[in-house]
Amino acid sequence: MEYKFSDRVQNLKPSAIREIFKYAADPTVVSLSAGNPSPDAFPAKEIAEISQKLLSEDPISVLQYSVTEGYAPLREHIKEYMREYHGSGTDDDDILITTGAQQIMDLSTKALVNEGEVIICEAPSFIGSLNTFRSYNAKLVGVTVEPDGMNTDELEQKLIENPNTKLIYTIPNFQNPSGVTMSLEKRKRVYELAKKYGVMIIEDNPYGDLRYSGESLPNIKSFDEDGIVIYAGSFSKVISPGMRVAYAIAPKPVFQKLVVCKQGNDVHTNIWSQRVCDEFFTKYDFNAHLEKLRKIYTAKAQFCMDLLDKYCAPAITYNKIDGGLFIWCDLPEEIDMPQFCKTAVLNKVCVVPGNAFLTDENDVCHSFRINFSTPTDEQLEKGIKILGKLANG
Amino acid sequence: MEYKFSDRVQNLKPSAIREIFKYAADPTVVSLSAGNPSPDAFPAKEIAEISQKLLSEDPISVLQYSVTEGYAPLREHIKEYMREYHGSGTDDDDILITTGAQQIMDLSTKALVNEGEVIICEAPSFIGSLNTFRSYNAKLVGVTVEPDGMNTDELEQKLIENPNTKLIYTIPNFQNPSGVTMSLEKRKRVYELAKKYGVMIIEDNPYGDLRYSGESLPNIKSFDEDGIVIYAGSFSKVISPGMRVAYAIAPKPVFQKLVVCKQGNDVHTNIWSQRVCDEFFTKYDFNAHLEKLRKIYTAKAQFCMDLLDKYCAPAITYNKIDGGLFIWCDLPEEIDMPQFCKTAVLNKVCVVPGNAFLTDENDVCHSFRINFSTPTDEQLEKGIKILGKLANG
Repeated sequence: MEYKFSDRVQNLKPSAIREIFKYAADPTVVSLSAGNPSPDAFPAKEIAEISQKLLSEDPISVLQYSVTEGYAPLREHIKEYMREYHGSGTDDDDILITTGAQQIMDLSTKALVNEGEVIICEAPSFIGSLNTFRSYNAKLVGVTVEPDGMNTDELEQKLIENPNTKLIYTIPNFQNPSGVTMSLEKRKRVYELAKKYGVMIIEDNPYGDLRYSGESLPNIKSFDEDGIVIYAGSFSKVISPGMRVAYAIAPKPVFQKLVVCKQGNDVHTNIWSQRVCDEFFTKYDFNAHLEKLRKIYTAKAQFCMDLLDKYCAPAITYNKIDGGLFIWCDLPEEIDMPQFCKTAVLNKVCVVPGNAFLTDENDVCHSFRINFSTPTDEQLEKGIKILGKLANG
Repeated sequence: MEYKFSDRVQNLKPSAIREIFKYAADPTVVSLSAGNPSPDAFPAKEIAEISQKLLSEDPISVLQYSVTEGYAPLREHIKEYMREYHGSGTDDDDILITTGAQQIMDLSTKALVNEGEVIICEAPSFIGSLNTFRSYNAKLVGVTVEPDGMNTDELEQKLIENPNTKLIYTIPNFQNPSGVTMSLEKRKRVYELAKKYGVMIIEDNPYGDLRYSGESLPNIKSFDEDGIVIYAGSFSKVISPGMRVAYAIAPKPVFQKLVVCKQGNDVHTNIWSQRVCDEFFTKYDFNAHLEKLRKIYTAKAQFCMDLLDKYCAPAITYNKIDGGLFIWCDLPEEIDMPQFCKTAVLNKVCVVPGNAFLTDENDVCHSFRINFSTPTDEQLEKGIKILGKLANG
């Protein structure tokens, strides 16, 4: 059989990160390439407690089919929480529970973007989302990420050049992979530009609750009086990614289309895990849990930056971060970055080459991404020492 | 904001069944419209036991990110089981764990079918799959279902008429909604026709283990020496649908594309539930569990058919079933079926109008579908009595 795949997937490759995981699976390799929460960060005891209670008190309701929109009390609790703590969401919005935030990218693209239409992305941006957009044959157009977020003049330029733009995709807080946080001024400007050019925004905010320093900035969704922002939130980084529970806050007409698309995608999200998230989110002290996570990660982020200063200067420079799980490292121009990453793997440390995060992977890139949440302190020190040696000769 | 949705979803409507659920939510209405496993059918005690053990022994592994392909031991166990008990799958195939079998339809369509290309479906067929195909702007072409499965002469005719056909979609066992089981001869013929015309088959088999009478017939996948069959299996009807764990057995080149598409869809299926399914499937007596389910449903199916004979003859006729969860009922031509279903709801019994399952919902149809697994015996008797009264006047 000669397989005839669709045009959408002809050129689709496995995510470079997931491919790198294959090296990372070698236990002698230090992996700085993942994006997993720290093993210390899971409320495992509480989850076991909640699950046992649900399964003994009302097992059928957690094992039976459920509704596509998601568990109604969880949707209500998220609504209240996001309004109270983040000023995000209005009566014109509704909340859809999804199977990870990745599914929000999939459903939004399916519902809004025809093949060949444009999605404007930060360059660099999260590879998982870029690949989802590609899987619908959307055309990706990149906008440079600066230390205070995407270059908004360039954004307007791209909007003018591409009148068939349907979406602007942004991760405003501690962006993956750059670690950059968008300034308030730019958040407002992105919103105004989207409104002016009749384009929707996907605001992807998986790390928003993981701020280690500086002041929280309002979500772009909090400005949304015009129904143009789809907000993507997730429990992956703050409860458990293995459960795959996330949520979209979307204007009602968009929400309705997302629901229809989700029906055809996986009918509904695992209801057992939705129930567990709901109980943990509402019956336990969720804010105290977040405080605990921030404590763990603040220490780990600082430890990692100290190691970079100690072992990697001057050849490797990096952006200091205020939150999130990633640090973006820059190599001098005379070092061939892809070759550097390959050599690093051969020397038993695994990082993600920066070009993997570009809208065009073939563009030249001198950066790589490291993650500090997954490795132990010992692994971090070992890995970063090797990187420093390789870069500084 | 005037929302500009993609061409794919412009005409996509919520599934008629899910809409009917809104009536069914009224506790005074007897719902014969669902497809849920019987509350008696869940191994709730065992699931609680397994889950507690996993969460106490190795919590991080069930809560952390996992791989897109699925939990490796579960894939291996399914491979062995399907080869041993169903002669299905070879070394040229691989197994992907999915978030319900619905996701197999989604990923297969994304990977194989361009917009405007044809998927040949049984008419009637499972509405969830039809809507997934529609959500990729595939063109649906229906082939009449006869008492021994789809009309294979008509299938060949349709293949000739539509050279841009990419997939044949079939549910060979106790088809949803018709209850029909495809004969061995037709299974072979469908396979040969797919091979002859260079088209792939999706064999969807959610009910295969729920046979109540007659001899098991081989899966179409068991003939697959040419790598043309994607087999869709699921734990929804035999363990729990709320967990959303299913599996595709696909030729390796197709498997690889499905994996890439799944990465962009939901990264991986809930790993906690994968682990629970794996333990239940391998460390408990799975065949004894299936035997128990067959006992429950054999009694319920027979009870339902007896009620139809008692209360609904002569106006309502139906196909006797050998398995599955559904019975397809036919009204005489002089009764307007959609009107009958509406009147039934007003009289507090909810069934699914047959045209919902057609490739073109506007085609005339004199049938409706009832489900006997979800309602109690009392509800079944009450509901069927009302249907009989309405039909026989």
